[in-house]
Amino acid sequence: MTAPTTIEHPTTGIRGVVFDVNETLSDLRPMADAFEAVGAPGSLAKTWFAGVLRDGFALSTVGESARFVTIAELQLRVVLHSVALRLSLDEAVESILQKLKNLSLHPDVVDGVRALTGDGLQLLTLSNGSSDLAARLCADASVRAEFSHLLSVEDAPLWKPAAQAYRFASEASGLALGELLLVAVHPWDIHGASRAGMQTAWVNRTGEPYPTYFDTPDITLDSVSGLADAIRLTR
Amino acid sequence: MTAPTTIEHPTTGIRGVVFDVNETLSDLRPMADAFEAVGAPGSLAKTWFAGVLRDGFALSTVGESARFVTIAELQLRVVLHSVALRLSLDEAVESILQKLKNLSLHPDVVDGVRALTGDGLQLLTLSNGSSDLAARLCADASVRAEFSHLLSVEDAPLWKPAAQAYRFASEASGLALGELLLVAVHPWDIHGASRAGMQTAWVNRTGEPYPTYFDTPDITLDSVSGLADAIRLTR
Repeated sequence: MTAPTTIEHPTTGIRGVVFDVNETLSDLRPMADAFEAVGAPGSLAKTWFAGVLRDGFALSTVGESARFVTIAELQLRVVLHSVALRLSLDEAVESILQKLKNLSLHPDVVDGVRALTGDGLQLLTLSNGSSDLAARLCADASVRAEFSHLLSVEDAPLWKPAAQAYRFASEASGLALGELLLVAVHPWDIHGASRAGMQTAWVNRTGEPYPTYFDTPDITLDSVSGLADAIRLTR
Repeated sequence: MTAPTTIEHPTTGIRGVVFDVNETLSDLRPMADAFEAVGAPGSLAKTWFAGVLRDGFALSTVGESARFVTIAELQLRVVLHSVALRLSLDEAVESILQKLKNLSLHPDVVDGVRALTGDGLQLLTLSNGSSDLAARLCADASVRAEFSHLLSVEDAPLWKPAAQAYRFASEASGLALGELLLVAVHPWDIHGASRAGMQTAWVNRTGEPYPTYFDTPDITLDSVSGLADAIRLTR
């Protein structure tokens, strides 16, 4: 396991915090239940999610993009095509996508987010998924008012980790990239944000090793709860 | 299931055929056994492989690249970190990477490849992995001499599906992109090749649906065996 908080570089001049949404704010673990409920192995949830990002990034590589939900649906049809399902394929796909729209925040998010706004920081979300999904997540947990913007790359030229996606968040916030801290569980997101000129915090709830072909995060911590303290301590 | 061969666009003026390697020439299914042999679920093999491509493509998105084997190893450490293994983590990683280096060709490849050279076509491989791996695969099956070049993106500016990778193959072959047919099982590879100006053949051995956010392949077939006929029929 990692120590609860590791500081690689002291953060400087942070005025805003940009949260990734899927898996960083939302708890994706119930997706395994959704696969099992249609008769598929729960382990397919991770294969599917990695495949959605793989194909989204493949499009980014050639300067294109598609809606997250479009890739999510067609990748579901790929990973489920040889599974003996309890429902029709269409019903199974619909049922799993419904679950994706009805996830909950990780329990560490609400207090963590309130501590940040309490410190006067502007908060945003920036998702490769839809803004509606972030809006529902935050509304259900009564933290919608903590965020100035809920942004989706659907309104940006390319998905994260392309620099254009982070610049889109910087422009929306009115803050420079260097004044923003990107918070994510995904190392590829940390890397893209770092390359775009943002400061970075990696939330590592499960003690995973960090793949060192990506830029090292400025802060590593095991939950969003400790983020305000980590920023205060290091600036 | 798809029909054995589907022609979307008649191919024209094909003088060379560029094969993807991992999963297109090599049979990756024994990777599941390699995971099981170290005490991990066999289903992790697909999650791991999708994660390797996801992270490789994330680097391409920001104009960078890393060696396939580097990403493969560090992603193994990520997916195995919470698994109760029969061996140490280092031994498990080594054992699975050894398996990757000792895969076999799909049974439809040898005859398929010989029929193509019999028709006077120049054959190449272009892999996001190492050339050594392709060399061993082809040597074991005694088809090394059928290929003029075994290329790796390790010698190109970026991984497939970036256009630079396909241009690298075109330059090595001495043929124009439009005279080359890219053959792959991966829809993201078909898309990148199509965008770079190549003709494309999708090998769909398992009857998977094609994700329509990617360009439609010119030819779809269920094995490499039928490729020479498909090219002859359509030109």
